[in-house]
Amino acid sequence: MIRVAIVGYGNLGRGVELALKQNPDMSLVGVFTRRAPDTVTTQGAQAYAMEDLVGKKAEIDVCILCGGSATDLPEQTPALTKDFNTVDSFDTHAKIPEHFERVNQVGKANQTLAVISTGWDPGLFSLNRLYAQSILPEGETYTFWGEGVSQGHSDALRRIPGVADATQYTIPNEEVIEALKAGQKMNVTTRDKHFRQCFVVLEENGDAAAVKEAIVTMPNYFAEYDTEVNFISQRELDKEHKAMPHGGKVLRTGTTGTDTQQVIEYNLALASNPEFTASVLVAYARACVRLAQEGHTGAMTVLDIAPKYLSPIADDILRRDLL
Amino acid sequence: MIRVAIVGYGNLGRGVELALKQNPDMSLVGVFTRRAPDTVTTQGAQAYAMEDLVGKKAEIDVCILCGGSATDLPEQTPALTKDFNTVDSFDTHAKIPEHFERVNQVGKANQTLAVISTGWDPGLFSLNRLYAQSILPEGETYTFWGEGVSQGHSDALRRIPGVADATQYTIPNEEVIEALKAGQKMNVTTRDKHFRQCFVVLEENGDAAAVKEAIVTMPNYFAEYDTEVNFISQRELDKEHKAMPHGGKVLRTGTTGTDTQQVIEYNLALASNPEFTASVLVAYARACVRLAQEGHTGAMTVLDIAPKYLSPIADDILRRDLL
Repeated sequence: MIRVAIVGYGNLGRGVELALKQNPDMSLVGVFTRRAPDTVTTQGAQAYAMEDLVGKKAEIDVCILCGGSATDLPEQTPALTKDFNTVDSFDTHAKIPEHFERVNQVGKANQTLAVISTGWDPGLFSLNRLYAQSILPEGETYTFWGEGVSQGHSDALRRIPGVADATQYTIPNEEVIEALKAGQKMNVTTRDKHFRQCFVVLEENGDAAAVKEAIVTMPNYFAEYDTEVNFISQRELDKEHKAMPHGGKVLRTGTTGTDTQQVIEYNLALASNPEFTASVLVAYARACVRLAQEGHTGAMTVLDIAPKYLSPIADDILRRDLL
Repeated sequence: MIRVAIVGYGNLGRGVELALKQNPDMSLVGVFTRRAPDTVTTQGAQAYAMEDLVGKKAEIDVCILCGGSATDLPEQTPALTKDFNTVDSFDTHAKIPEHFERVNQVGKANQTLAVISTGWDPGLFSLNRLYAQSILPEGETYTFWGEGVSQGHSDALRRIPGVADATQYTIPNEEVIEALKAGQKMNVTTRDKHFRQCFVVLEENGDAAAVKEAIVTMPNYFAEYDTEVNFISQRELDKEHKAMPHGGKVLRTGTTGTDTQQVIEYNLALASNPEFTASVLVAYARACVRLAQEGHTGAMTVLDIAPKYLSPIADDILRRDLL
């Protein structure tokens, strides 16, 4: 049995608790939170104060870190890797090299292993980009996001004066995708690749025209995109637009031989982004413990880990059933 | 520079020669063939007799074995792994465990490394089945083949009396795919998942009705499928149906949490099956040499190999650019 601690209990931590129930080779020691443990409602797990974590070191094989990338993980991953094997979903792309170096040093110094930046992007999308460009060295890789909810863009909508609540969907441009898959050579920007669809609830005296103008002219978030704005009631938003679907696509179009067209495509369609990310974290937590048992220390990413380590099934059975 | 020998020079060997030109960290020592070398027309490579291979051992880091799975590879891979690191695309699914064991023993005994059963199925499809089932343990995996040419079914058509030549396309059932992706639970057989489309050239006095009857009633190959038979001229067959496109899809539909639908999908659309398979072999040849340099011996499959080994790019650059 692989004994797991969940550190942080928001949507992602809750997803990890649910995912662990689908993996009979793993058991949950408890949820560790900065809140008062008796105020945390779990799906059955025991909640503990964060301060109690190190005291339970002997009972824990791996900590799954479910905090945010902005402020939690840059501190927590190095700090906890002193005492534990850890897995995180650190997703601030530009800061991953720095995060890797810090965590790697701590792991090497303390004989622990950290698997950083798992999830789907970074994570599964990263390894698909790597496989695809290695197999088709002459070609282009395109990443599309959506259809799904962007939390950052939804937050930006909610900060506009006159907006009570809002949800923003990022929608990939299917025409661009089809043209690329058909072998068309195009220079496509993130703008060309995506639309933005907004569902907005106005405050009681909110001015729809002014809010719409503020949205479609907002630099970086909306001004550069084709943006659709829909005003709806809070009731409708709560009913139809509070789930957290997401997904996307990694597309590699390349040529072999004499301009022979080859296409590799990886798609995710996720009804719940946090539950799926949690499932990826759990599979890499298994890999982390197994690699640590083999003597690996420091930091690793999904690029460093052979597929077999994610599975609880013996190598010879995998060869028989999956090859 | 990774120094490569190509063993066997049919469509796959030709594809490897072309793929190596796209990989500047690899160089081709030569093509080794059982035919008289001066009768073999390469894309520029030197051709040698098979008997000269072992004499060039000091110049070769890895042999890419391009023979067939029926009779060549079961003999060649163990034999050549005595002297060389090797990569093959052995694809007789049921015999992979046995092939693995034999080659593994030879590699361990001779301090060489063999990477077996690369390509796309087995190969890239295998590792996608593994990733997907490990991340979504509650779910179903479906593999679809096509749209593409099945050599085995085309051969079966050509053996029918009255048939001069033929090409068979395997076509996946898009309705089944869409239903599965939409979350429908179905028991689908290989038959439900695919159609068969035949383009047949009759011999001069061939009887179309008899040939058609022989096709649609042929057990295992066609009788169990919806099969379309088209009679065309040799000229049209040569013009439109002599390419070797193929591809397919690995689809995992699973649930997380409380019946939350999650879909992982991997697609290949290949204008040339042998050129793409060759590109996969070349990327795994790089991995083979690097893993051998790290001291690995015996046999490995795509399930055992971390993604980073396929790439010529340094680990820190991969982390910066792909995560």
